[in-house]
Amino acid sequence: MIADICAQVLDRITPSESDEKALDELTVRIIAHIDRVADELNMDAHGLLVGSVARDTWIVGEKDVDIFITFPEEISRENLESIGLQIAKKVATDHEERYAEHPYIRALYGGYNVDIVPCFRVSDPSSIKSAVDRTPFHNKYLRTRIKGREGQVRLLKQFMKGVGVYGSELRTKGFSGYLCELLVLKYGSFLGVLESASDWKRGVIIDLEGHGTLRHEDPLIIIDPVDPSRNVAAAVSLDNFCMFIDASREFLKEPSINFFFPSPIESVTDDEIAKEIQARKTDLFAIVFQTPNVVEDILYPQLYKAVKSVEELLHRNDFRVFRSDVWSGAQSVILLEMEVAKLPNIKKHIGPPVESPVHSEKFKAKYTRSYIKEGRYVADVPREYTKAKDLLLSQLQTCGLGKNVSEAITKGYRVLKNKQIAQIEDLGFRIFLRKFFKR
Amino acid sequence: MIADICAQVLDRITPSESDEKALDELTVRIIAHIDRVADELNMDAHGLLVGSVARDTWIVGEKDVDIFITFPEEISRENLESIGLQIAKKVATDHEERYAEHPYIRALYGGYNVDIVPCFRVSDPSSIKSAVDRTPFHNKYLRTRIKGREGQVRLLKQFMKGVGVYGSELRTKGFSGYLCELLVLKYGSFLGVLESASDWKRGVIIDLEGHGTLRHEDPLIIIDPVDPSRNVAAAVSLDNFCMFIDASREFLKEPSINFFFPSPIESVTDDEIAKEIQARKTDLFAIVFQTPNVVEDILYPQLYKAVKSVEELLHRNDFRVFRSDVWSGAQSVILLEMEVAKLPNIKKHIGPPVESPVHSEKFKAKYTRSYIKEGRYVADVPREYTKAKDLLLSQLQTCGLGKNVSEAITKGYRVLKNKQIAQIEDLGFRIFLRKFFKR
Repeated sequence: MIADICAQVLDRITPSESDEKALDELTVRIIAHIDRVADELNMDAHGLLVGSVARDTWIVGEKDVDIFITFPEEISRENLESIGLQIAKKVATDHEERYAEHPYIRALYGGYNVDIVPCFRVSDPSSIKSAVDRTPFHNKYLRTRIKGREGQVRLLKQFMKGVGVYGSELRTKGFSGYLCELLVLKYGSFLGVLESASDWKRGVIIDLEGHGTLRHEDPLIIIDPVDPSRNVAAAVSLDNFCMFIDASREFLKEPSINFFFPSPIESVTDDEIAKEIQARKTDLFAIVFQTPNVVEDILYPQLYKAVKSVEELLHRNDFRVFRSDVWSGAQSVILLEMEVAKLPNIKKHIGPPVESPVHSEKFKAKYTRSYIKEGRYVADVPREYTKAKDLLLSQLQTCGLGKNVSEAITKGYRVLKNKQIAQIEDLGFRIFLRKFFKR
Repeated sequence: MIADICAQVLDRITPSESDEKALDELTVRIIAHIDRVADELNMDAHGLLVGSVARDTWIVGEKDVDIFITFPEEISRENLESIGLQIAKKVATDHEERYAEHPYIRALYGGYNVDIVPCFRVSDPSSIKSAVDRTPFHNKYLRTRIKGREGQVRLLKQFMKGVGVYGSELRTKGFSGYLCELLVLKYGSFLGVLESASDWKRGVIIDLEGHGTLRHEDPLIIIDPVDPSRNVAAAVSLDNFCMFIDASREFLKEPSINFFFPSPIESVTDDEIAKEIQARKTDLFAIVFQTPNVVEDILYPQLYKAVKSVEELLHRNDFRVFRSDVWSGAQSVILLEMEVAKLPNIKKHIGPPVESPVHSEKFKAKYTRSYIKEGRYVADVPREYTKAKDLLLSQLQTCGLGKNVSEAITKGYRVLKNKQIAQIEDLGFRIFLRKFFKR
């Protein structure tokens, strides 16, 4: 049964021989081109295929190819960046410039995104000069070891995609491809990984080389075989860690191809929004603003920070948030489901302990109708915001929102309440909203 | 200024010479009667005047006279009680039987309540056999020492009455008369006490004899001069302790006779109730039931326990209480002012950590639409009580209410909301309600 499912999945995700051949030809050509241009510049730099394509662990639909240009360790960072870009731009006619720790080129070749990334060719992973310098060592470590288990890696990746925990980018905080490969290496097979994960407790340590040196506080700790101080799973959030454990157990109990290929989620209709709100009797607020023009790895940390900060603002003012989330398309949305969104006209203002005469005198001068409760002066004072919406309309910009989100909100934002949320017609948002309600 | 006020107050509260003489004759007569009856019974028991009348520190309006019958230490508790009552009943024709640690007689003589209380005549306060045995020692300790300061004690008592902190009974949790006398002894005068109290911090220790032996956790600690292990101020609540500090400071800053004789508080009208509720926008609930037929020292601890327990019930169900209090007349009322009295239809049910497979499986079997949050399974489940009133109507009897209050509530209770509270027409309640609103 499980074997049948895995076979079906592999059938759908394993690249065809012709695809493999085409990609192989493409990467060989690009690398040769890099080497030629470097030669012309009289530069000891070489193209190197890394990542899942290099290890034949990529799956159908993955369009990302990583080709590095390795430079001698002695070159300056400035030269690495400028000459690296110079070579990459010559090689790739159709490209855009991107930035991570340093700039690189994303080139488009017949449906594939080829990232051409300059790095230092250091002698040892302990002496890397930039984060990407580790990648060639990952490649070297895995290339021979993963041989014969490519299909197992592909199954694990597709499983993680299906259950929504794949991808180490800051939006997802999930499992990277390299992490999947290490897990298969450790447990031998896709099923081996799932069986082990079923019993994981937070703080589990997987150390293939037995050389870890540091304490990590992350839920999952997988020591990098090429760097004893690094946790490859540092990006995995507690909830993704748990969702993978849960999915592993569920799949082993009741295997189904749906784990790999879940049915698409339909968008909610206006009617469904109204009905859901009516049934829950919570108040739903959507803070809507134009999405700032930055990459997701810049945007999402700011959105997550913003929603946390807005929740704190609401709680400081005695409102209660039931659940929250963020969504981003052309517009971005901070969604807040409230347990308490309306409060009385008065609130308690807790003053100093009665025993403190100086503070007491000041407090009593300011609040003429104070009383004593639990050893302190207390005054019932008018509440500034009795409605959560008023607070959001007035104080949102005092929240820690992150630079770009803050700028976007300064340009203008709306706060939609309950049925007004149907004014957001974006299908992506409507799918997100169904998932939000379905939880 | 202060001297004028004190003189005016003393004028109003010092018993007249004729009152003193009449009371003196009365007590001498009763004591002689006790001694005669004891003699007839061939019992070595004697009448003894104790309390504020014995020390001439009583104030006009105080109607309580304490006369003890002291018995030899060797007598059994049963005999003390039976013979004590026998003597007292012979002496007092118009009386009722009362109970503290053991039974005593309250007799009515021309407007005075005379409590006739049997006790053991022990040789030393360290060997007392019942709590009242200490009283003769208090009397002996104070009689000579308080001489010449009776007026100061009277002022302090009236001041405490005026600011509402006088009386050690369980309803008030305030300062006893004996405590007032010790304070005047310590600080020399009424003003001396107030000046000292202005600087009190919780935990202040006053130990006239410098013989205290135990640690006490009370806000005010006044070691009994006749019992090194006892805190005379153990009954004083933190709020009364603080109210006395606050009133002392206020009086010294701006002396006024109003501290001793505050203007009477008017009862609130139906209109004022409606207006106050409208202005505050809180929800006000009154739980109303027939007052059980027990003395205040039994009733009030139960009412205080009940209101605390009801608050816990509300908080357990996610409602928020803003303020609460109790009142008791022919009917008793638990009054609750709510910050949040209405909640959504759903609530979060937090399940086990995902890593715990057995508990997880059970939880997921029960809650089919669970999700993962902060490492735990969570299910949004229907809320049983979305309105505080429904909860009170359904679950009040599950609260810890105390025996007599519980019985009274079992016989029937109403929950009045907001304007319905005007259905309680009792003037005492209406005065209480104005104080509640005024705070």
